[in-house]
Amino acid sequence: MSTHDHLVGILGGMGPAATAEFYTKLIGRTRVTRDQDHLRVAIWADPTVPDRVGAVIGTGTDPYPAMLSGANRLRDLGVTLAVMPCHTAHVYLPALVKDSGLRFLDMVAETVAELERRAGAMSSVGLLGTRGTIASGLYQDRLREAGFGVALPGESTQVQVDLAIKKVKQGDPEAAGVHLDKAVRAMAGNEGRLIVLACTELPLAARFLSASRGAPLLDPTDLLADAVVRECLGPYPAEGLREAG
Amino acid sequence: MSTHDHLVGILGGMGPAATAEFYTKLIGRTRVTRDQDHLRVAIWADPTVPDRVGAVIGTGTDPYPAMLSGANRLRDLGVTLAVMPCHTAHVYLPALVKDSGLRFLDMVAETVAELERRAGAMSSVGLLGTRGTIASGLYQDRLREAGFGVALPGESTQVQVDLAIKKVKQGDPEAAGVHLDKAVRAMAGNEGRLIVLACTELPLAARFLSASRGAPLLDPTDLLADAVVRECLGPYPAEGLREAG
Repeated sequence: MSTHDHLVGILGGMGPAATAEFYTKLIGRTRVTRDQDHLRVAIWADPTVPDRVGAVIGTGTDPYPAMLSGANRLRDLGVTLAVMPCHTAHVYLPALVKDSGLRFLDMVAETVAELERRAGAMSSVGLLGTRGTIASGLYQDRLREAGFGVALPGESTQVQVDLAIKKVKQGDPEAAGVHLDKAVRAMAGNEGRLIVLACTELPLAARFLSASRGAPLLDPTDLLADAVVRECLGPYPAEGLREAG
Repeated sequence: MSTHDHLVGILGGMGPAATAEFYTKLIGRTRVTRDQDHLRVAIWADPTVPDRVGAVIGTGTDPYPAMLSGANRLRDLGVTLAVMPCHTAHVYLPALVKDSGLRFLDMVAETVAELERRAGAMSSVGLLGTRGTIASGLYQDRLREAGFGVALPGESTQVQVDLAIKKVKQGDPEAAGVHLDKAVRAMAGNEGRLIVLACTELPLAARFLSASRGAPLLDPTDLLADAVVRECLGPYPAEGLREAG
């Protein structure tokens, strides 16, 4: 396929700032000399999709019908390759693929693959995400299967992660950075463990880290954007490892 | 209409970075406490639409069929209010409204209205935009009708504007800032004339101004984002004038 045979679909709005950030990353990672070299993109951003975290931990309204409706709209627009820049929502990805027939790139799979490429450099990774992402086992099951040790946040660290996410969703990433700082310091440990920012709001907060600046962070949305470019345009020459923060 | 009765459509990709920036602005200008308070948004970003500038000045392929196709897709998705974050493309707005039946907010009208609210403070405004926007008379006709004097860039200034836009489209807004600096200094004159950044790439370059930092700039995409929020959610209390840069 050439550049423009693909129509990239972004099933977004979960939350909106993370969607805008993902689209910005995708644009920045596409090598162009003019507008017409960029990928064609359709975005369905419905922030009214019920809270994914509440649903996954069993206390909220089912977000799946709204997510499937969005996926079906993207499919009907002619989308050939879809992504969903929300980790918690990836719990529903297998059902979404089956029910919509849409081809999705899987952010968790891209992350595990990147960690495998780096393997040897680390025995254990730290995972920061929503309570839904953590409770679902979405990441840790696949990471352990691939041979990684996975460190999970304790309750006081999770409280800081929850606050960081909430602040980004409220439009205050700088305040979020203060909470993320505490979580990153708690998770990095003495050995400077690599930390996966497994919630799409966290990289927006990571720009405002101060106390934990320089901690090794991995942003799966970078990997997902790279994967879209790779699938649509073929592999670019290697540029080494990328880290958020 | 309540928040979620509206589905906002963004006819974008002209260029992609300006579309992502507009969506980011819209999110930032919506007052929320959680995802579900945000507006529902659909974006059709087709960067393969032929160059608008070439077509307007009579040397290029007609972009209108591709633009209309995008507008029709947004309409078919159920969009109730559309915007197009590209000034040059506004030359085609009347036809687009007529042919698609979609309701669009008009970025030029929003800009003229804002300048009228500020009137008295200025006798003349400077206009920076593509050669297509300038040649079409899109802004200056309506501004002169509203009683404003309009200063247009001379050829050497237009060359700097062209370079600034090109650099943003190539993903290098910092290099673009160097060119925009020259254009802003040339246009501001001794009286510190207000300058309208009438190309959606220019505000991205304006973040990197150095020599002309502090020059009075008006960014119509701010006004367009405000207009979307106002139409969908009602007026927020006044916050004073906003300026880019």
